[in-house]
Amino acid sequence: MSVTPEINAERLLKDLRHLAQIGAGADGAVHRIAGNDADMAARDWIDKTMRVAGLQSSYDATGNVFARRSATSGPWLLIGSHSDTVPAAGHLDGAYGVIAAMEVLRTLHEAGHPMADHVESVAWFDEEGVREGSQGGLTGSTALTRDPHAEDLFGYIELHVEQGPRMERAGLDLAPVTGIVGVRRYRVTACGQANHAGTTPFEMRQDAGRVASRVAAELRSICQEADPASVGNAGVIAFDPAAANVVPGAARVELEVRAGREEALDAIERALTDFLLLVAAEEECTAHIECTSAKPAAVFDERVLGVVEEVCRRHTDRCAPLLSYAGHDASVISTRIPTAMLFVPSTGGFSHSNREHTADEHLVLGARALLDAVVRTGEVLLPQVLSQQLVAA
Amino acid sequence: MSVTPEINAERLLKDLRHLAQIGAGADGAVHRIAGNDADMAARDWIDKTMRVAGLQSSYDATGNVFARRSATSGPWLLIGSHSDTVPAAGHLDGAYGVIAAMEVLRTLHEAGHPMADHVESVAWFDEEGVREGSQGGLTGSTALTRDPHAEDLFGYIELHVEQGPRMERAGLDLAPVTGIVGVRRYRVTACGQANHAGTTPFEMRQDAGRVASRVAAELRSICQEADPASVGNAGVIAFDPAAANVVPGAARVELEVRAGREEALDAIERALTDFLLLVAAEEECTAHIECTSAKPAAVFDERVLGVVEEVCRRHTDRCAPLLSYAGHDASVISTRIPTAMLFVPSTGGFSHSNREHTADEHLVLGARALLDAVVRTGEVLLPQVLSQQLVAA
Repeated sequence: MSVTPEINAERLLKDLRHLAQIGAGADGAVHRIAGNDADMAARDWIDKTMRVAGLQSSYDATGNVFARRSATSGPWLLIGSHSDTVPAAGHLDGAYGVIAAMEVLRTLHEAGHPMADHVESVAWFDEEGVREGSQGGLTGSTALTRDPHAEDLFGYIELHVEQGPRMERAGLDLAPVTGIVGVRRYRVTACGQANHAGTTPFEMRQDAGRVASRVAAELRSICQEADPASVGNAGVIAFDPAAANVVPGAARVELEVRAGREEALDAIERALTDFLLLVAAEEECTAHIECTSAKPAAVFDERVLGVVEEVCRRHTDRCAPLLSYAGHDASVISTRIPTAMLFVPSTGGFSHSNREHTADEHLVLGARALLDAVVRTGEVLLPQVLSQQLVAA
Repeated sequence: MSVTPEINAERLLKDLRHLAQIGAGADGAVHRIAGNDADMAARDWIDKTMRVAGLQSSYDATGNVFARRSATSGPWLLIGSHSDTVPAAGHLDGAYGVIAAMEVLRTLHEAGHPMADHVESVAWFDEEGVREGSQGGLTGSTALTRDPHAEDLFGYIELHVEQGPRMERAGLDLAPVTGIVGVRRYRVTACGQANHAGTTPFEMRQDAGRVASRVAAELRSICQEADPASVGNAGVIAFDPAAANVVPGAARVELEVRAGREEALDAIERALTDFLLLVAAEEECTAHIECTSAKPAAVFDERVLGVVEEVCRRHTDRCAPLLSYAGHDASVISTRIPTAMLFVPSTGGFSHSNREHTADEHLVLGARALLDAVVRTGEVLLPQVLSQQLVAA
């Protein structure tokens, strides 16, 4: 076992601050929409920084920036995150995982650690999906899953800020991430009969608005009963016609549900549909539920997750496994490459906002844990991968 | 007691059809928005028709058309309704009461009935309030309550189609109307915290959308518990921001409640406010309820209503008192002049629609009952009014 080197905490935080300035607006927020000038300037800076460190760095056809030691042949453990942002973003979402991966690779490279030959860093292109024409984001990571280069990668570890309040509330410093919730979006529509809100008695109404309101009001109970770890949100609602003195003849709710297992999503969908049909019958309306999008739940690789969990526990007692309720590149990558993630806490749970914040000590701790996870993955997984290659050759 | 003459049913139905043609659109609906060309042409036709019948007819400064026998000095019993419509209206709302009043006055005049000297017909201006700049409608009748001419009127009776399904459902031919519901409109607003719908756990949300949905879903129970004869409607709802993946930070519901007594409206308002504050506390939001308009409940004059009820029962057993859930000119007139109304059924309850319909036999029956009510009011109320005038003189 080689001695694990120590990351350069000062460089990590300085690089984070530098990246935050690229695309910073007068509003104190970051505007690196995938492909805009700031986003491309940030990618150029990442590329240049890795070259200056003596590494080989390159863009792929999609816009992802990969760096590794030159003249190595793999297999590699991929580490990184995305460097694009939503409009008016914070400085940590994606950026932190990119900078930490750059720091870990440079540290191993500078220390001459044997694992340096088996690590590649990545800055994914268009994770957020706010770029015009984006097909819902995760563009760069999705492209990799279809690229022959995925064959050369024996694992993927992504470090990220939690983007929620769970860790802070539970007093956690680090969290190995067990998987990523699946997200299903639904459009619920109800059709009744618009009518005079004075002259039509309650019992003769076909009030589509009541169907919509009751579904929106019930969603939380439906989720909690099906899976206490699930969440749901009724985010859009509209009645037609929209007038105080007209019984709504049509109504619409747009909602989403998130859960860590497909079976839980299925159970919620069944309960939601049952409730909708019951309420529609009571209100003498017709109703329809349409799943407008479905991102499957990701359950991370047991072995990579085991390494991440072991390393996190080595660093702190204030550590517990967590499910990610936000999407990440790790979600699609996990369909092709053994994957896990780790989180550091987000102060106040804010994200996609210039209120996004994580204490420096947690940022440094996360990068240290990532470095250790990389080294430990090299010890635990790499020998088996290499021996399989020998057998295959 | 003079013999009560018989109305000319054929003329009544012909005149109704004629008026329906003025402002008729290609959609088969009537478009006599107060003051538009069709509305003014209809008023001119009413004015001319009464003149041709040998009566004195005139516009007042507001646009109301009054007709009575010339060279009479009152007091008069006013009968009528409004001749303006909503856009795409049916042919009976308002128009029926105007035509029936014209028919009753002409019948009495032609028969030389002594009550002919004490009846005035009216076609009110802008009852509907859809005219640009209208202050909520009831413009013509409101103007009369401030006009010295009101001093000359000892009663007001308005015949109207029900505009709802209650009579048809109960198998009623005629209904004396006991009063008109008061209508209060409210804007309910809730303010929470917009947040990520995935990463924010249920118990840490301040979901303004849930406050709005729960209030909209509960309104019916609140009304029914406070007053089983009341109705309510949540007609408009909106969340902000409106996105499936964002917990709503703000939400709004526009609703109205209708009840026959102010005390019932007060009770509903209290229960609604209590429920809103309870729900807002549960959802950790702030909430506000604002009464945006309040039309007081009208309770009709006992003696005029007594006459109308007596006459209706004389015509049919299928007769029961009803509360009006729609507003009428009679509502404001009742604040100044002893008032009552009577209804005939609306087929299917449709109104403010080209599906508005009432069987000819009910239209004729209503006009006959109106004539009888006029004659009977002359017998019951007029002598007392005349004797009071003698005392005052």
